[in-house]
Amino acid sequence: MTDDLGHMAHALRLGRRRMGQCWPNPAVGCVIVKDGRVVGRGATASGGRPHAEPQALEMAGAAARGATAYVTLEPCSHHGKTPPCCEALVQAGIARVVAPLADSDARVSGQGFEYLRKHGVEVTTGVCAEEAARDHAGFFLKVEQGRPWVTLKLANSFDGRIATATGESQWITGPEARAAVHGLRASHDAVMVGAGTARADDPSLTVRGWGAVRQPVRVIVSRLIDVPLMSKLASTAREVPVWVVHGSDAATMTRRAWESCGATLLQSEVRGGRIDPHALLAALGRQGLTRVFCEGGGQLAASLLAADLVDELVGFTAGMALGAEGRPGIGAMGVDRLSEAPRFVLEEARAVGADVMHRWRRA
Amino acid sequence: MTDDLGHMAHALRLGRRRMGQCWPNPAVGCVIVKDGRVVGRGATASGGRPHAEPQALEMAGAAARGATAYVTLEPCSHHGKTPPCCEALVQAGIARVVAPLADSDARVSGQGFEYLRKHGVEVTTGVCAEEAARDHAGFFLKVEQGRPWVTLKLANSFDGRIATATGESQWITGPEARAAVHGLRASHDAVMVGAGTARADDPSLTVRGWGAVRQPVRVIVSRLIDVPLMSKLASTAREVPVWVVHGSDAATMTRRAWESCGATLLQSEVRGGRIDPHALLAALGRQGLTRVFCEGGGQLAASLLAADLVDELVGFTAGMALGAEGRPGIGAMGVDRLSEAPRFVLEEARAVGADVMHRWRRA
Repeated sequence: MTDDLGHMAHALRLGRRRMGQCWPNPAVGCVIVKDGRVVGRGATASGGRPHAEPQALEMAGAAARGATAYVTLEPCSHHGKTPPCCEALVQAGIARVVAPLADSDARVSGQGFEYLRKHGVEVTTGVCAEEAARDHAGFFLKVEQGRPWVTLKLANSFDGRIATATGESQWITGPEARAAVHGLRASHDAVMVGAGTARADDPSLTVRGWGAVRQPVRVIVSRLIDVPLMSKLASTAREVPVWVVHGSDAATMTRRAWESCGATLLQSEVRGGRIDPHALLAALGRQGLTRVFCEGGGQLAASLLAADLVDELVGFTAGMALGAEGRPGIGAMGVDRLSEAPRFVLEEARAVGADVMHRWRRA
Repeated sequence: MTDDLGHMAHALRLGRRRMGQCWPNPAVGCVIVKDGRVVGRGATASGGRPHAEPQALEMAGAAARGATAYVTLEPCSHHGKTPPCCEALVQAGIARVVAPLADSDARVSGQGFEYLRKHGVEVTTGVCAEEAARDHAGFFLKVEQGRPWVTLKLANSFDGRIATATGESQWITGPEARAAVHGLRASHDAVMVGAGTARADDPSLTVRGWGAVRQPVRVIVSRLIDVPLMSKLASTAREVPVWVVHGSDAATMTRRAWESCGATLLQSEVRGGRIDPHALLAALGRQGLTRVFCEGGGQLAASLLAADLVDELVGFTAGMALGAEGRPGIGAMGVDRLSEAPRFVLEEARAVGADVMHRWRRA
């Protein structure tokens, strides 16, 4: 059992590194062990295929016969764009499969384990189940609730401000915090901002300084698409995908202009004058996103928080005070009582360069 | 030299524990070492007397002859309410005195060391000078600039709010953070709040749960003294000192009423409709305070920050979002450019119960 834990931790590490790189599929890791030696390793490839198991089996070759495969999610059993991993494991002669969890995808959900057992493979489940559930939380949310995991980032002054009254915001946090933000972008399928932030900061929202990565989709949330076509996002939409989530009242001319820039337009429901946050995430889930990194602004952040749709909060707090005239990182939420406020549990707090990084999960 | 560092670190620890307990005097520690053995220890007593050295000498007794005394500040040489420590050290036969720094009090400033050398005592200075300078920073500020060290506390939500729009504030942070705040109060000479906080929270501002401590003075900053006489502060002013810093336009009736409750009234300059923060701290310095712990509210915090009078910031951040309608922890500061914002350097960040504690010093 100690060996099982160690090997599964290894497989989880392999899978975790692929977060943000293989949507719409889960980031799965696989380690094949024969007589205590690791003979094969694999993780879901960019774009979701090939899966982890065939890669690990290929590395193992003949050594897979009689070996144990550690997989961080139930191996698939359905014929999709690739033959099912279960068949490949059986054909390679794997004697035992260790997995933390069943896949909640209805096309797999226990059938993978059943197929393996039917073909004489010993199946052990429940190993590192909690860790795996956290790693695959975005994938499970998409499958079960039709929406991606949402991580909300807030980089602000000591007193929660993201810009001065005159709008100056670059830079409140230091270079190390900004580098960490690029790493966080890389571990998500998409980076999302509201129109105000797109206008004010003209961000490119790409991952820089982290080597060759699959760039996250850039999502702009703007009912009327009031973001300039001269913006970096519009002008680079053919290089890295840009999706614009807008309301039905966005002007046809504007929609066409963005489409001709190469952006994908997604119409979504409007409620109270704004894009409804539930409808927004449902639209992103339908497109296959499992993990979305929201970088503001205050209105979008408030709308997601008020709807209890934020799964993880990441704060970067700088040693600077801007005062009450500064722009708040989170807009109006309509919270009157403390008991109504969305609450989060601390996961981690540490210095990142000159700033404090603090990470929280939904309570 | 390694021994010197170890013994001085010991003396610094002894002194540090007395912070907040011995104003107007500095919190000094003293360790007497004979043949490598600690034979005496002392630290400034409550209220500032006796000093550290005579206590350590008394414990050492005859063993002080030929011993080394580690003192965290230059021993005093002037006849004040007690005979000077220098004389006591010489009379006890101390052979060597190790100290980090000269006292900047003009009555001592180098004369202590001179007296010792003249009487055949070897004097070593500069050991742990940086640490000692930090520990005595409040005392030095009072002596050199006539104002106390100011620590500003902010206990707020993830987005920098200290109450909901309706004013609900109890409790945003958890019991561990609140216990830590009581510890911080105990290490300061006074706890200070603005009138708004005194009205809204009706706090007692005493130290609870930390054993027998000298209670810090409670300071209310209120131009017109618009705090109810039914408040906890007014009604307990005979038990633990309450000082009210007010403007010249505070009504005579109100002043008299507070005085008859047992409060001490300190009139201070008003500038722009508010108590001038420089004048405020000068008034507190004249009363002998060396370390003041400001617990808000937003206006007082903003006024101190804008005047660059905050030496240390202590934040407690809770995993809760309240939105932009919530009450800001720091009020309007008039900062337009990031380059104008007061900046702080991170000293420490860690979890305290369910919250994040982060401590910063003026850059």
